[in-house]
Amino acid sequence: MYFKLKQEEVKLEQVQVPGSRDAFIQWLATRERGSTRYAVRKFTVKPDGIIAMHKHPYEEAVYVINGEAKVCVGERKEDIRQGELIYISGGEPHSFFNHSKNELEFICIIPYIEDMTITPVSGDCV
Amino acid sequence: MYFKLKQEEVKLEQVQVPGSRDAFIQWLATRERGSTRYAVRKFTVKPDGIIAMHKHPYEEAVYVINGEAKVCVGERKEDIRQGELIYISGGEPHSFFNHSKNELEFICIIPYIEDMTITPVSGDCV
Repeated sequence: MYFKLKQEEVKLEQVQVPGSRDAFIQWLATRERGSTRYAVRKFTVKPDGIIAMHKHPYEEAVYVINGEAKVCVGERKEDIRQGELIYISGGEPHSFFNHSKNELEFICIIPYIEDMTITPVSGDCV
Repeated sequence: MYFKLKQEEVKLEQVQVPGSRDAFIQWLATRERGSTRYAVRKFTVKPDGIIAMHKHPYEEAVYVINGEAKVCVGERKEDIRQGELIYISGGEPHSFFNHSKNELEFICIIPYIEDMTITPVSGDCV
């Protein structure tokens, strides 16, 4: 099995975590398309946009394609930028804030596990 | 658990599939760093560079960050470019040829499964 996708043909959906703004997701490799073990998603966050603090039982790896952001993971705060990868274990609250003047674009990989629940967590990352 | 990597600090290794040339891999998220279910690698292929035809029992997803290439998957030949994702099932022979004048950069995700054997396959992708 093989498939190819152009990202501009993939639906851009708003990130649903409450408190998020100007943050969008495109599901590229998915279970529905045949990728049964993991999903590959592209995120786009506009300047001043936020993916609000949340957690889920599965880990995620994020590779930044363009731009930069402040990231909070638990109590930790740091900057990430183009060409960097971060890895966040399952259960760790995390959020992204694009404090820059440019769009932030990143690829985010998550595994498919039994429990795919996303839980909002209070706290900001600014 | 959390980690962050700058790709320029990660070792650039030559792709080992026999017949490959001017093709490099950087292992970003790996089992050794705590990513137990999948690995995220960055590939860089110089103009006229090749990742020769090979297969492995696990699937892979490729997201093109920069540049373009000709890809062969089994008997299929096609072009991929920046912003596109391809997904190749386990067992499918595949190769990449950078026929352009610019560097090709892509992210490639593979799951960790029991059998991680890579097998060279005869045939070119030009």
